[in-house]
Amino acid sequence: MARSLAITLVSGGMDSCVAAALAAREHELASLHVSYGQRTQQRELRAFREIAEHYGVERTLVADIGYLREIGGSSLTDENMRVERADLQRSGIPSSYVPFRNSHFLAIAVSWAEVIGARKIFIGAVESDSSGYPDCREVYYEAFNELLRVGTRPQTHVEVIAPLIKMKKSEIVTLGAQLNAPFHLTWSCYRNNDTPCGDCDSCALRARGFSEAGIADPLVTPGTHAEKKG
Amino acid sequence: MARSLAITLVSGGMDSCVAAALAAREHELASLHVSYGQRTQQRELRAFREIAEHYGVERTLVADIGYLREIGGSSLTDENMRVERADLQRSGIPSSYVPFRNSHFLAIAVSWAEVIGARKIFIGAVESDSSGYPDCREVYYEAFNELLRVGTRPQTHVEVIAPLIKMKKSEIVTLGAQLNAPFHLTWSCYRNNDTPCGDCDSCALRARGFSEAGIADPLVTPGTHAEKKG
Repeated sequence: MARSLAITLVSGGMDSCVAAALAAREHELASLHVSYGQRTQQRELRAFREIAEHYGVERTLVADIGYLREIGGSSLTDENMRVERADLQRSGIPSSYVPFRNSHFLAIAVSWAEVIGARKIFIGAVESDSSGYPDCREVYYEAFNELLRVGTRPQTHVEVIAPLIKMKKSEIVTLGAQLNAPFHLTWSCYRNNDTPCGDCDSCALRARGFSEAGIADPLVTPGTHAEKKG
Repeated sequence: MARSLAITLVSGGMDSCVAAALAAREHELASLHVSYGQRTQQRELRAFREIAEHYGVERTLVADIGYLREIGGSSLTDENMRVERADLQRSGIPSSYVPFRNSHFLAIAVSWAEVIGARKIFIGAVESDSSGYPDCREVYYEAFNELLRVGTRPQTHVEVIAPLIKMKKSEIVTLGAQLNAPFHLTWSCYRNNDTPCGDCDSCALRARGFSEAGIADPLVTPGTHAEKKG
């Protein structure tokens, strides 16, 4: 029996990689990557392509929404703002928040889903133990599913699924390991395109996740960035 | 007293022009135009610039979402599909429907609003007497406002307003005339960049609106496209 088509949003990071691994169990995959002028755009795009190749994905779409860089307002896209050092105890929304970013990603996925007939859209958003971004909360995905129900053709039945939304980072690592997700192909660092800085929120969350899961991060060899943490 | 900032989505057509005219009565305007690979992209961009100049708008943003052309699925963006002849009695969704299009436009507007501190976003969507597009219905805008409430920073208070949503095209023409909206700068045709074809849905809706309002369309001089209707 032909498997139904699902779109996976693949940033190149570890969460979306595990979401893709979950989707691949039941669906034929179509993979979407969005470049938005973020600092590590080239490295993430490489990770996206290698993950898509790993899963034998035939349909890929790379969408460029460089206007987000023009809009600015985030340390990920605005060269005049610094990417903060990691502080996982910080409350509130960090400077890396890109205003309303996931709505752009999902709008692209929904338009594509309507045309290619995909019924599900997988996104690796994580609410707990994570970033504090408002568009990474379960309530946001409920609202988005209502929007796409009323905003698409009556015969379109597509649903956004955020399977990791309530998981801890360490649980995501464990799940990914069980699914043989290709962590070695992923990229998480917000700052660099070559060696992970080990010092931004995203590196710190990743490190804590692997550490708590008791699994070695294939991207980190001893000494890779430990000395920077001093 | 300084006037609060509102973003107006200006396609270059007559509806968004009247929405901008309404917004200009109470707000300082910031104007957003989105190019999405539609056939009449260049002509619409010119209309956008001239309308912004007319209202002395200082902040403008032109966002390019050309990936919608790659996604296809609409006669407006897909060269392999024909723009249908006008049929205002047609039921269902016409081939010019661009899947989930207005969600892309609004996502851009919301991201920009968060950064520049705009409190309102005006869009010239029309439900009745119009296109049949699912993302031009009042229920869609209610869902979108819920999405942006949960998907943005807690201190962000921005609202999407679709002031024409329940109006007939002729009422929009009358209102625009009362507000001195610069109809002569607008562009509606789906097909051409020079002379309105007079034969697509958008031209037909515009013609009916002006006719029922008893107002002459400044874009149409006698004989402009009447012979094509034969």
